[in-house]
Amino acid sequence: MTEVARPSEGAGVGGAGTTGADAGGPRGGEALPLDLDAAMEDAAAAPHRAGAPGPGVRRARAWLSRAVEPGCIDFWRFVDEVGPVDAVRLVRGRRASPRIRGLVASRVDQDLSLADLRRAERCGARLVVPEDDEWPGPRLHALTVAVADEPVEPAHQTERTKALVPPVALWVRGPGRLDELVERSVAMVGSRASTAYGEHVAGEMAHHLGERGWTVVSGGAYGIDAAAHRGALAAGGPTIGVLACGVDRVYPAGHEALFARIAETGLLVSEWPPGAAPHKHRFLVRNRLIAALTRGTVVVEASSRSGAQATAKRAHGLGRGVLVVPGPVTSAMSVGCHELLRGEELGARLVASAAHVVEAVGRLGEDLAEPPDHPADARDGLSDVAVRVLDACPVRTGASPERLAMVAGCDVLDVLKVLPALELAELVEWTGTGWRLTPPPGKRTPAR
Amino acid sequence: MTEVARPSEGAGVGGAGTTGADAGGPRGGEALPLDLDAAMEDAAAAPHRAGAPGPGVRRARAWLSRAVEPGCIDFWRFVDEVGPVDAVRLVRGRRASPRIRGLVASRVDQDLSLADLRRAERCGARLVVPEDDEWPGPRLHALTVAVADEPVEPAHQTERTKALVPPVALWVRGPGRLDELVERSVAMVGSRASTAYGEHVAGEMAHHLGERGWTVVSGGAYGIDAAAHRGALAAGGPTIGVLACGVDRVYPAGHEALFARIAETGLLVSEWPPGAAPHKHRFLVRNRLIAALTRGTVVVEASSRSGAQATAKRAHGLGRGVLVVPGPVTSAMSVGCHELLRGEELGARLVASAAHVVEAVGRLGEDLAEPPDHPADARDGLSDVAVRVLDACPVRTGASPERLAMVAGCDVLDVLKVLPALELAELVEWTGTGWRLTPPPGKRTPAR
Repeated sequence: MTEVARPSEGAGVGGAGTTGADAGGPRGGEALPLDLDAAMEDAAAAPHRAGAPGPGVRRARAWLSRAVEPGCIDFWRFVDEVGPVDAVRLVRGRRASPRIRGLVASRVDQDLSLADLRRAERCGARLVVPEDDEWPGPRLHALTVAVADEPVEPAHQTERTKALVPPVALWVRGPGRLDELVERSVAMVGSRASTAYGEHVAGEMAHHLGERGWTVVSGGAYGIDAAAHRGALAAGGPTIGVLACGVDRVYPAGHEALFARIAETGLLVSEWPPGAAPHKHRFLVRNRLIAALTRGTVVVEASSRSGAQATAKRAHGLGRGVLVVPGPVTSAMSVGCHELLRGEELGARLVASAAHVVEAVGRLGEDLAEPPDHPADARDGLSDVAVRVLDACPVRTGASPERLAMVAGCDVLDVLKVLPALELAELVEWTGTGWRLTPPPGKRTPAR
Repeated sequence: MTEVARPSEGAGVGGAGTTGADAGGPRGGEALPLDLDAAMEDAAAAPHRAGAPGPGVRRARAWLSRAVEPGCIDFWRFVDEVGPVDAVRLVRGRRASPRIRGLVASRVDQDLSLADLRRAERCGARLVVPEDDEWPGPRLHALTVAVADEPVEPAHQTERTKALVPPVALWVRGPGRLDELVERSVAMVGSRASTAYGEHVAGEMAHHLGERGWTVVSGGAYGIDAAAHRGALAAGGPTIGVLACGVDRVYPAGHEALFARIAETGLLVSEWPPGAAPHKHRFLVRNRLIAALTRGTVVVEASSRSGAQATAKRAHGLGRGVLVVPGPVTSAMSVGCHELLRGEELGARLVASAAHVVEAVGRLGEDLAEPPDHPADARDGLSDVAVRVLDACPVRTGASPERLAMVAGCDVLDVLKVLPALELAELVEWTGTGWRLTPPPGKRTPAR
């Protein structure tokens, strides 16, 4: 589904056109000075063209993304209130409040904004800012709502690593367009010390999700994360790795090839500028982003009281579905999953297949990769089994009835019973080797 | 825990004293005639001694248990209304309503009541009737309530195999006292085509339940049923096999040794008279009894749309807890379990250990095999983990902290952290080889 993910307006869209030379200026307009403060003054004075990031905004946010650790409520509120250019001017001119000045004190005189933007460019990355079309605003809205609930007094606020604060900007590496990729996305998280069972299930599930054009989002770690990314990649599906270090760094080091493949077809995303190290506390801050960017979080394997459980709690707090894959009760790596399913507070749902995941997070009528141009009632009139089989059908490669039965979680006989009706309604078609969703007219590709 | 199960008033209690000679008469009183109709007339005329089954009642119910297939609403209502002796008199004298006469038409002239009672006696079985102290009335009350909801018109009634009708009498084989054994009992059901995983879990769970004095009730079938019975037997715990054939028959034939062991220490129970064949429809009728007799039903492995799911639905309908053991999502034998856990309608709860089962079905303060004489608040003040560890402690044989952690589903470190507090509160004790519940004073046995 890579074609859906590519920027529809060419490489210049969003942050993709940001080069070192125009990093501080309006797109296609006159260049701003190389000196940060001079650039900010010029940007503040320049006329703002509607519908695009104002002059200096990207450079301002590049500087801000290094000035204070992400996940800081007061700093985000400050930037949100005065805007990025004025935020930099006020901070650098020592005119911000003592609280804000305290937050940036250690890094206020440093300026690596141009260097960061250039370093990003060298590895095929760019900075996506809230002012861009590509910014996944609707997804991150839950964070904006959450931060609005936090008290003003720092002592009463949720501790930083737990605070639900929107990112100031996102460093993004890869060909995918962030807002489009996260629109139909699912997080898949779990233990690093996963078992063969967990990796198999994560891989299969991610593969099936990828086949249907769902983006699999994970953290790029060993174990379940890696299995999820690989499963999605194997299906040619988009996948996003949300990192706790710079998008040009590889952590863990053993994932160099994996990250390279993700950056080729999907996206590596980080709140930290290029070169940033994967400090431990950053993973906790990063986790909220995985939950926020996706429609739901699938926990595949988790030991008792694991990080995956914390991510699930975070997802629930953001109004996202918590989906849990069970396992053998004899496996320590499934204890955390079973704890989640036994607890009532997160409303965790058991999922055993990609079809279950799509059923839980897919919006009505959006379950198909392309909106069907069949009248809505062709689908509405279907039996429960027929809907599950339909949901199990891949977009491109045909699948056997046995495969459909496995994905849909029903009997092969039931699949064979409903397929003729689905074909008659032109919802599915036979490719010669298997069944797939009928492509919308005009988008017909030869069956693969 | 067999000692709890043995009849406290010796072998003569309840139906245990029923011999061929006094089968139709009051216990210890004058014998009634061998001819059924004469015996019933004598019984109807005889004075009724309060607090014991009336004269002829056992013989009447023996005849009734063969006259109409169990699970028939109208017949049960008829017997309930006029009483067993008059029921036999009215039916045999062709004075019952046409509907009732129609129900018994094919078997009304047959009389095997004495032969059945003698045949039962020969295999160490007896007939327990609702008029006995041993009758598990409180447990079966849910069936009495359910049948009261059924309409009078047969055409509007639930179909026979699904009807929730109390039994007319129960043929019972073994030393256990039925009412006592079912008081703290859990049903464990699942697939006959079980996997090694399912059998392992069923066996372990039944073992732990048996260790804590819980009766494991199952159907004596291959697979999960057998694993559950064996697990309970291995722990020296009571177990009940509820059969769809006579208690002197072995079905499946391969379970001859298993049934013999159950009959030695627990109970085999059936609504059908000795010699009755295991007809297919009888299993469906039997299943309601497994659900009714127990506090909750644990489903260990079930394929999609299996009988175990039907039993779970039945249990829910009777207000019993539906407890489900998850498994690998890659296993067809766990698909039914996951369906139950995904469905909302039965309120199915995921259980991964015996502790979870006891937590779900155990009444407050009854979780320990013996009521503790520690003040209630010794337990009340405990943390969640401490309660789980306490619930995991066996009654007799000491268990290692690792074992406790596994059973309680928590970390060994947590177990080691809470054990000192539990010991200080005199709730647990060290046996030299492991931890167990502190026996109540006066019941102290040497640690095994």
